[in-house]
Amino acid sequence: MGALHRGHVSLIEAARRDGTYTVLSIFVNPTQFGPQEDFNKYPRDEAGDLNICAEAGVDLVFAPPVEVMYHPDAVTTVRVAKLTDTLCGAFRPGHFEGVATVCCKLFNIVQPDVAYFGQKDAQQLAVIRRMVRDLDLPLEIVACPTVREPDGLALSSRNRYLSPADRRQATCLYRALCQAAERIKAGERDPAAVAGLMREVIRRAGPERIDYASVVDPASMQPVERIGGPVLLALAVHVGPARLIDNLLVDPGATGPAAAPEQWLSDAATGRRDAAR
Amino acid sequence: MGALHRGHVSLIEAARRDGTYTVLSIFVNPTQFGPQEDFNKYPRDEAGDLNICAEAGVDLVFAPPVEVMYHPDAVTTVRVAKLTDTLCGAFRPGHFEGVATVCCKLFNIVQPDVAYFGQKDAQQLAVIRRMVRDLDLPLEIVACPTVREPDGLALSSRNRYLSPADRRQATCLYRALCQAAERIKAGERDPAAVAGLMREVIRRAGPERIDYASVVDPASMQPVERIGGPVLLALAVHVGPARLIDNLLVDPGATGPAAAPEQWLSDAATGRRDAAR
Repeated sequence: MGALHRGHVSLIEAARRDGTYTVLSIFVNPTQFGPQEDFNKYPRDEAGDLNICAEAGVDLVFAPPVEVMYHPDAVTTVRVAKLTDTLCGAFRPGHFEGVATVCCKLFNIVQPDVAYFGQKDAQQLAVIRRMVRDLDLPLEIVACPTVREPDGLALSSRNRYLSPADRRQATCLYRALCQAAERIKAGERDPAAVAGLMREVIRRAGPERIDYASVVDPASMQPVERIGGPVLLALAVHVGPARLIDNLLVDPGATGPAAAPEQWLSDAATGRRDAAR
Repeated sequence: MGALHRGHVSLIEAARRDGTYTVLSIFVNPTQFGPQEDFNKYPRDEAGDLNICAEAGVDLVFAPPVEVMYHPDAVTTVRVAKLTDTLCGAFRPGHFEGVATVCCKLFNIVQPDVAYFGQKDAQQLAVIRRMVRDLDLPLEIVACPTVREPDGLALSSRNRYLSPADRRQATCLYRALCQAAERIKAGERDPAAVAGLMREVIRRAGPERIDYASVVDPASMQPVERIGGPVLLALAVHVGPARLIDNLLVDPGATGPAAAPEQWLSDAATGRRDAAR
């Protein structure tokens, strides 16, 4: 959707490592915004984006106007059920139908062999993966790790909405995820306790409007009853005028420093951005 | 869906005229049948189908089992709204979602440059065309004329359900369409009068269960209020155990013998099966 940041650049870098021709799409897709959401004020910076693309070595930028993407009488939608009942899907009705439909269109227009998505939008990634598998779309989806600021805040175009005070508060999302991960590593298996801890960390930092603080199955996006395997910790929190999301994949069985959130944080802080394939 | 007849062969012939490699799919798609419909007894004849394909010069037959086409946890569907509210869409809830989804999958698996569909399933054709346009699927859809028996009955795999007495009754569909077309050519502009005539012709022949006898816009599939341009006359009638559909495109402005239904009938009877592109 443009307003490119280092998270997007990490996707470009992954694409350039793997492939021979890199296409980047910029399209602020109206159909994935609700009527009360930020479609109109969503940050747009085509000149800045094109500079970033040129510097990062993108071969083609596909930035169609809305009327090229959608016929006035378009009536076709792609729906990925179940996965979209929870988390952002529950708070943003129609959002993932808009995402799935526009991604299906972009894939058909660009016809890439591989498409790169950030792990930061974990539910979107799961929805796209499922759509590609279910509709037999002829491409591979590669997830790239969330890129973070030195203090842990996940990069997002919507961070531009944050005042300096909001920006300080916003670090609570990643802090809540890390503390929850530590609690799981220490043996906690009750998702309600883990979710409660995340809410507590967030509220203590200031933000009061938490859309969700959930412990879900990473494939189905459904809440788990007990933490018995890898889980996704997922947050959506309103900070000032921005609705921020973040998530962390936690495997309670994994050991060693590579799986510890502190390590992930320092990886992000030192700019390590390997594509996880 | 297999149970191939001369209508399907006309599609193969059109594909072979246009292209260099012809793929035919055979898949009785469970998701486009309602719970009370004929999925289980739908005619299947793989050996006969393969003979017809070999004779007609098909290069590849794609006949996947159901469990190859659908993952057990598949949740993705393609929906074409509005066009599917009327005609068969109104009588077969979920039918066109099943059709659109499986066609999207087949297109992505086979990746044809051109796909051929019979005009006999006019609403299906309109739905597929709209889906291809709306989702930017990279292929062209070509419609081929309905192939008919010498007495006008449109070829259909479901004609195999008809007893000899049913078979005689079944000619009433095309007779109703032709008489309605003549009435329009003679100046009738009221769709209700035209629909009434079709119902009368059908009931006089015996069939009592008419799902619809409609005069619709050929692009939107919505009922017209007045016949001011080309219209689609569309019928769905239960004859014995079979639910038969048929349709005729009528242009009230067109003149000359080429547009007269009698001519179309005799074309069909003499085996003319040109693909209309």
